[in-house]
Amino acid sequence: MPELRKDYVSNTWVVFSASRAQRPGAFRTGKWGTDPSDCPFCAGHEDMTPPEVLAYRKDGSANGPGWWIRCVPNKYPALEPDGRVHRYGTELFHRVTGVGAHEIVVETPDHLDHLSKLSEFQVGAIVDAYRARYVELVRDKRFKYILIFKNHGERAGASNSHPHSQIIAMPIVPRRITEEIRALNRFHQSSNGACLFCRILEAEGTEDKRIVSRNESFVCLSPYAARFPFETWIVPTAHRAAFEDVPDEERTQFARILRDILGRMDGILDNPAFNYYIHTSPTGGRATRYHWHLEITPRLAETAGFERGTDFYINPVMPEDAAAILRGQVKLPDLPT
Amino acid sequence: MPELRKDYVSNTWVVFSASRAQRPGAFRTGKWGTDPSDCPFCAGHEDMTPPEVLAYRKDGSANGPGWWIRCVPNKYPALEPDGRVHRYGTELFHRVTGVGAHEIVVETPDHLDHLSKLSEFQVGAIVDAYRARYVELVRDKRFKYILIFKNHGERAGASNSHPHSQIIAMPIVPRRITEEIRALNRFHQSSNGACLFCRILEAEGTEDKRIVSRNESFVCLSPYAARFPFETWIVPTAHRAAFEDVPDEERTQFARILRDILGRMDGILDNPAFNYYIHTSPTGGRATRYHWHLEITPRLAETAGFERGTDFYINPVMPEDAAAILRGQVKLPDLPT
Repeated sequence: MPELRKDYVSNTWVVFSASRAQRPGAFRTGKWGTDPSDCPFCAGHEDMTPPEVLAYRKDGSANGPGWWIRCVPNKYPALEPDGRVHRYGTELFHRVTGVGAHEIVVETPDHLDHLSKLSEFQVGAIVDAYRARYVELVRDKRFKYILIFKNHGERAGASNSHPHSQIIAMPIVPRRITEEIRALNRFHQSSNGACLFCRILEAEGTEDKRIVSRNESFVCLSPYAARFPFETWIVPTAHRAAFEDVPDEERTQFARILRDILGRMDGILDNPAFNYYIHTSPTGGRATRYHWHLEITPRLAETAGFERGTDFYINPVMPEDAAAILRGQVKLPDLPT
Repeated sequence: MPELRKDYVSNTWVVFSASRAQRPGAFRTGKWGTDPSDCPFCAGHEDMTPPEVLAYRKDGSANGPGWWIRCVPNKYPALEPDGRVHRYGTELFHRVTGVGAHEIVVETPDHLDHLSKLSEFQVGAIVDAYRARYVELVRDKRFKYILIFKNHGERAGASNSHPHSQIIAMPIVPRRITEEIRALNRFHQSSNGACLFCRILEAEGTEDKRIVSRNESFVCLSPYAARFPFETWIVPTAHRAAFEDVPDEERTQFARILRDILGRMDGILDNPAFNYYIHTSPTGGRATRYHWHLEITPRLAETAGFERGTDFYINPVMPEDAAAILRGQVKLPDLPT
């Protein structure tokens, strides 16, 4: 019998339906790579991007080679940096000018690298760059929310296979964040000031069925109502609203657990396409009760009309099984391809 | 300057960003077809499916050939028909047994047909079959919502290219529907009893920029805050909560406008993958203020980490342009592939 589960935080329901995994073509990974010869993120091609806004390099000069991390404005930005935020609204038509920032964090000079195979030092440098750019962007009072995210693989919406992440600063607080904050505030009120995410860590620790890995400062788990096969979350054990407030030592732990889970996925699921994104408090200190975290969603199956029409998800893999597989305790069943 | 727009109904925002259309690989259609030789939906292969629950045929016997429409239970169902709906809940873990129905509407005996190329009679028969199965399933009091939807093309999540739709009856009312009902109720209260969808038709008719086509009973429009390139909605001009209450003559008009818009998309966008789904009132008459409609979302670009992390969408095509292109008044710009 399939099982329906509600997300801890939002009203999103998921149906876990193992029989769907038997469908022809239910899981596909798909190999893919773009050409390094005209890649704007490769070392030596620095003139193919807008001028850098941050780079970690020992020698050499700005916008030349010698860097190990490089951040540049996106050449095809979703939002644009100049101008004021204007809001217009009639009864039915609400709009806001598309002011924002859209940046790329190039994670390595080498086109053929893979985030999970980089050194701990390098992944630490990526996380440092995330924070450095966040801290810079958050000073711009026009931006209400800043999303740090990564698309890996064509099926995950990446248009270049050179390892890179993105940062988008936007003039509104988007719906998923608003919803999470509302849920955390409700929980806080109804539970004597407790934090919903702290309680999730407690309950998941007790059940001990969906934890993939943990270190001093973080837990990686497959959430109770995972929307997607092998979806995992990295949640800090210290209650802290904002990613940018994480101290150095904790950031090192974060880089370590991120590298660990991506390495497990890469090895066990054969380099799947995936997205990850950091959920943190909106700018302006408006959500002190938030609890920042990172969500990873592999792209092994297409969402279809059912999900689009309902925001209700069909997931053929139970999160308990996903966690056991990612822990290496259970072998991935031979799934039809 | 990009522009942000809020959906009429929900709190979903969309950024319209033409520069994103210039990205390499921003639009892909992708040819695809599965093999008819082992297709369970082809005439003559009736024994490859569970026994039919509905068929339109003149001669011949059940589960044999001679039909032009055939409905069967899904061989890989997301929800299962037997058992009672049990709800369990602790503070964090809520679940419901996965009771429901999951059916296939085979739209034609011919594997290589395309919905938009079928005769008006045949599309009318598909719509009649949707209604007939809906009316049958709605009698089962365990089902709280019934979604009729279609996945066309691999990128839209279809695992078989033989033209077919699906019907899923589920034991909960999913989130998008709950949200829409809440928005319609709020609007009803704040606007002297007006219907939000009736008002949308009025305002869009006045603006007259996003209408693609209309007939006696329906308007096809590209919504103000379309989440996806070339997203369109078909909205009945008569205020009616539920799809199943539509009278025969209006159903004929519905089939006609559906065939028309799918034909436009097929011709102009070169047979794109797409999903469509009918939004109607939940079962049990609990949302008399709802206004049923159908939404079509082509799959020309991948949603990525940004959308997953925020429920905020980046759309490179303004709905005014999409409507003008689908009306045939403006040529599709040569988009990079």
